[in-house]
Amino acid sequence: MDQGRILLAVNGFNPQRWHELFAAERQVVLEADGAADPSITYAVVWRHKPNLLARLPNLRAIFSIGAGVDHIMTDPGLPDVPIIRVVDPNLTQHMSEYVLWRVLDHHRQSMAYRAQQSKKVWRDLPQRPAGDIAVGIMGLGELGRTAAVGLRAAGFRINGWSRNGRQVDGVTVFAGDGGLIPFLNSTDILVVLLPLTPATTGIVDYRLLRELRRRNGLGGAVLINAGRGKLQKDDDILRALEDGTLKEASLDVFEVEPLPKTSPLWSHPRVFATPHVAATSDANHLVGPMLAQMSAIERGEAPSNVVDRAAGY
Amino acid sequence: MDQGRILLAVNGFNPQRWHELFAAERQVVLEADGAADPSITYAVVWRHKPNLLARLPNLRAIFSIGAGVDHIMTDPGLPDVPIIRVVDPNLTQHMSEYVLWRVLDHHRQSMAYRAQQSKKVWRDLPQRPAGDIAVGIMGLGELGRTAAVGLRAAGFRINGWSRNGRQVDGVTVFAGDGGLIPFLNSTDILVVLLPLTPATTGIVDYRLLRELRRRNGLGGAVLINAGRGKLQKDDDILRALEDGTLKEASLDVFEVEPLPKTSPLWSHPRVFATPHVAATSDANHLVGPMLAQMSAIERGEAPSNVVDRAAGY
Repeated sequence: MDQGRILLAVNGFNPQRWHELFAAERQVVLEADGAADPSITYAVVWRHKPNLLARLPNLRAIFSIGAGVDHIMTDPGLPDVPIIRVVDPNLTQHMSEYVLWRVLDHHRQSMAYRAQQSKKVWRDLPQRPAGDIAVGIMGLGELGRTAAVGLRAAGFRINGWSRNGRQVDGVTVFAGDGGLIPFLNSTDILVVLLPLTPATTGIVDYRLLRELRRRNGLGGAVLINAGRGKLQKDDDILRALEDGTLKEASLDVFEVEPLPKTSPLWSHPRVFATPHVAATSDANHLVGPMLAQMSAIERGEAPSNVVDRAAGY
Repeated sequence: MDQGRILLAVNGFNPQRWHELFAAERQVVLEADGAADPSITYAVVWRHKPNLLARLPNLRAIFSIGAGVDHIMTDPGLPDVPIIRVVDPNLTQHMSEYVLWRVLDHHRQSMAYRAQQSKKVWRDLPQRPAGDIAVGIMGLGELGRTAAVGLRAAGFRINGWSRNGRQVDGVTVFAGDGGLIPFLNSTDILVVLLPLTPATTGIVDYRLLRELRRRNGLGGAVLINAGRGKLQKDDDILRALEDGTLKEASLDVFEVEPLPKTSPLWSHPRVFATPHVAATSDANHLVGPMLAQMSAIERGEAPSNVVDRAAGY
């Protein structure tokens, strides 16, 4: 057989559409079928079982279904084959839209106006122009850079923080450990789009939030996390909301998902919580490019969007 | 005296900042001082008393403090001098920002997610891309055209409706009476930015809302009115929300303002109501250009942004 088979190893959602689309072109093995199959050459995974892939002798590449690959990197038995990230304009656009939506919603004082509406209060609140507000984006990968473009078009000032400090047009970039505090000190709305790695786990803690600018045109600091829940400490966010370190937060991700019913974040009046929907992977957009990459690998071409194992993303 | 005096005739808010800024350059008369003064050559007005300006024998121009001039045109004793509209990039940007914010908020299903959050429900809702949603802008003046640019950048499809049907880049324009129904039939989110004239008063009624597209990617039609309250019929909007003609509405303006406490719009779960704050006139930005226009008129130059009296805006 010319073409290797695809292992589709997905946990946490029903991969029916993915299965249909892959199966139209190649043979697909579901995890439940038994994974030690030498005919499998590609794995398409979302939160696969640890050590599952180690049993595949002829595996040529691993494809992540989500934009992040932390769900793959934590596998202690990860074989030494290329891990391929999702780079999809639709997913990127979807995330950029979420970030712009949430920034505008805090900037235009949605929570305060909703509170007034519930009390039938007709009162205009002081409103600064977008150009007076600095949005700070942590993580300047594909998602962070595209979010910056949309926010700049809407008139906001943009700071960015990344490990390597690569320059981005129209963004004041701060680099590495030494740049973190200055970045936070000049940021009013913090947008978290970092990859989850051992170095970034729990980075959004009380100490970090404390460094955001609170005496600003918004009347306080705002946190928006659209990255991964384990980047943040839920309890620290609650503490920061309670003592004024944070004014408001939009959280799409949480340390534990689904967010437990017992979490006070559900009912906090200054938290807007969504169920990890900022940007979702759409099989209709992603399967075609994945199949194209598989064919390219078989033609001997180097795959694109390969994860840097040392960096972890 | 070379320079004529300015009558500042403002009702409904405190014009202190306007007064200060004008007074730094010219003599200012407040309405309460008595208005039949021959030394007055310019009037700067917001909801001035009817027939007030007719008593000024040497008036050379009337300046509107707001973007709309309906508050001037309803004066039965309006003298035959140029009426000058506000055209201010800051005000335009502010309005464009409001429109983008509200469109994104409906598109990203804020009301449904808030309802889920209040019940601690973790469930993702189907989410269409912006490119599947058609936003229809009624009124393609300065504000409508700029709002279209921001919405297009965010990926939405844009329809526009105007009296004269002037073409706008990237907007599918429908013109005049004959274009209204086709415009509505292809619109999912209706944004009202019309000037208020006898021809547009009450135009947003039940019959009009009935023509919007309801079987769409949003699960219903949405109304956003950031123009003038008297463009709409509050009761018709309520009826449309109740019978499914409208899914949701963002209303910044109302037939009577402040919105009476008795209005059911205050507490409707699918209405987001704000107290006429979509775009506010800022004296710090507007007084300078007004003073410059006054000097230009005195040098014999033709003023810009003059209202077309026949059209009413």
